[in-house]
Amino acid sequence: MAARWKALKAVLIDLSGTVHIENDIIPGSIAALERLQKAGLAVRFVTNTTKESRSLLLSRLTNMGFNIKPEEVFTSLLAARTLVETLKVRPLLFLEDEALEDFVGIDTANPNAVVVGLAPSMFQYNKLNEAFRLLQGGAQLIAIHKSKYYRRGDGLALGPGPFVECLEYASGQKARVVGKPAPDFFYTALTDIGVKPEEAIMIGDDVQLDVGGALDAGLLGILVKTGKYREGDEKRLESSLDPSCVVNDFPAAVDFILKSLGSQSIKSTSLAVMGEF
Amino acid sequence: MAARWKALKAVLIDLSGTVHIENDIIPGSIAALERLQKAGLAVRFVTNTTKESRSLLLSRLTNMGFNIKPEEVFTSLLAARTLVETLKVRPLLFLEDEALEDFVGIDTANPNAVVVGLAPSMFQYNKLNEAFRLLQGGAQLIAIHKSKYYRRGDGLALGPGPFVECLEYASGQKARVVGKPAPDFFYTALTDIGVKPEEAIMIGDDVQLDVGGALDAGLLGILVKTGKYREGDEKRLESSLDPSCVVNDFPAAVDFILKSLGSQSIKSTSLAVMGEF
Repeated sequence: MAARWKALKAVLIDLSGTVHIENDIIPGSIAALERLQKAGLAVRFVTNTTKESRSLLLSRLTNMGFNIKPEEVFTSLLAARTLVETLKVRPLLFLEDEALEDFVGIDTANPNAVVVGLAPSMFQYNKLNEAFRLLQGGAQLIAIHKSKYYRRGDGLALGPGPFVECLEYASGQKARVVGKPAPDFFYTALTDIGVKPEEAIMIGDDVQLDVGGALDAGLLGILVKTGKYREGDEKRLESSLDPSCVVNDFPAAVDFILKSLGSQSIKSTSLAVMGEF
Repeated sequence: MAARWKALKAVLIDLSGTVHIENDIIPGSIAALERLQKAGLAVRFVTNTTKESRSLLLSRLTNMGFNIKPEEVFTSLLAARTLVETLKVRPLLFLEDEALEDFVGIDTANPNAVVVGLAPSMFQYNKLNEAFRLLQGGAQLIAIHKSKYYRRGDGLALGPGPFVECLEYASGQKARVVGKPAPDFFYTALTDIGVKPEEAIMIGDDVQLDVGGALDAGLLGILVKTGKYREGDEKRLESSLDPSCVVNDFPAAVDFILKSLGSQSIKSTSLAVMGEF
C-alpha cells in the first residue's frame, strides 16, 4: 500500500464542501493547492455540479483566490457532453441557462436522448411528459447525476435524482449516470491527463460519491471532515477506509499526501494541522 | 372451486376499459349489468380514477345509460379520504379541482401528510419541493395509486406513479398505496356491503391491478379482453389464472358468473357470446 502512495501522480479534488462552502474558502486551501501543484502532482477538480458551465464555475473560484486553469476543472456537465458526442445522440436537455454554455454546438433538433441535470424551471408536467414520450419511442436516458437533494439558502431542495427516478419508473428504462460515483467519470478525468487509476487519489467530503466512488474505480481516497461530512460517515462505506485517510480538512489531506510521497515541499506552517497523524 | 363460484354474493367491476372506453359503452354492458343486479348480486364499481369525484363520475356513467346508484361506485379517491380520516392527518393534496369535491371538509391547514393523485397542474418543481420538505419533516406519503401512465387523446401521458416515485426517492420514504392492486382497497369496498373476499369476484381489463390484485386479496377474478388487454396478458400473473376466467368482454363475464351460480337469469341473446366456454 505504501508503494501506491509513493507512486501518486494525480490528485482529484471535490469543490463544494472540500475547498469552499458557497463563497467561503476552507481555511488554508489556497496555499494547500499551491503546495500540491508545486510538488508536480497533476490536479483535477471533479464536481457533480449541473447548475453552471465550466467558465462560470472557474470565474467564481478565481474570484475566491484559487489559482486554477480551465483544464483543471472537470464537471459532470462536461462528462455528459462527452458522452452525448460519443453516442452521437441529439439530447433534450434538462438544464438551466447557466449550464447550457457547455453544450454549445450540440445538435438538439428532433431529440433521441434525454439528459437530466438540475433544471427546476423545466421540472414540470408537460416537459417531463415530452421526455417520457421520447423515452417510450426509444430515446436513451442520461442522468448528469442522481443526487436526491441539495442545500440552498432556504433549506433542502430536490436535486435531479428524483426526476431521473420519475422518468425511469414511467419508461421502465434505467438511466446512464454520468457524474460521481460512476467509475467512468473518474476514468474520463484521468484519461485526460494520462494517469492510471492506481496512480491517483480523490479528496472529498462526500463519503459515497467522492471516496466510495474513487475506491470502486481503483483510486485511493481521502475523506475530509468539512462540508457535508457527519461523524461516522466513513463507516457507511462497503469497503473499509483506513482511519488515517479521514482527515480534518483539505490542507490536512494535502499534507498527508505530500508526506506519503516523501516530498520536501511541506511547509513548517502546515505541519501544525498534521497532529493527528 | 366450484363451491366458491356458487357462493358468490358480490361482483366488483372495473370501469374504464371494462364497461366503457371514454364515452363508448362496451356493447351489451348495460343489459349485462341489469342481469347481475336482478340475480341479487351486490355490485360495486371499483376504479383507480383520481381525476374526478364520485358524483362527476356517476353523472357521466348515468348519461351513458348505466343504472348505477352512488353507493355502487367506490373509487381510490374515496378510499384515500377514508384513510386520511382514519389516520387523522391533514394532507397536502395533489389533486385537480374535479377531484377535490371528494375531500370537502378535510382539514388541509398546516399539512402533515402528502396525498398524490393525478394532478398535472401541481406536478412542478416548487410544489413537489414543498411536499418533499413536509416528508423530510415526518409527514406521511399516500399514493392514490401508482400507475405509470395513461392514454389520453394525444397519446400516452404520465400518471401519478412517477411523481410518487420522485418523492419516495428524494425522501427515502415508501408511499402507502391506496388504490388497486392494494388488498385494503378490495377489503374496504367489500366491508361496505358485508361480504367476505371469498364470496366476491372482480371483473377487469388490467391483469395486474384488477385480476392480480383481486386474487392476492383472496377474491376470484375474471379478465376481459377489452380496454388495455393485450394478447397473453394473463401469462404475466404470478399465480396462474384458469383459462375459463379470460373472456371476451363484460357481458361474457356476467354470463359466466350467472351460469356458475346456476342462475336462470341468463338471456338467450347472451348465450351467443359464450361459445368459448
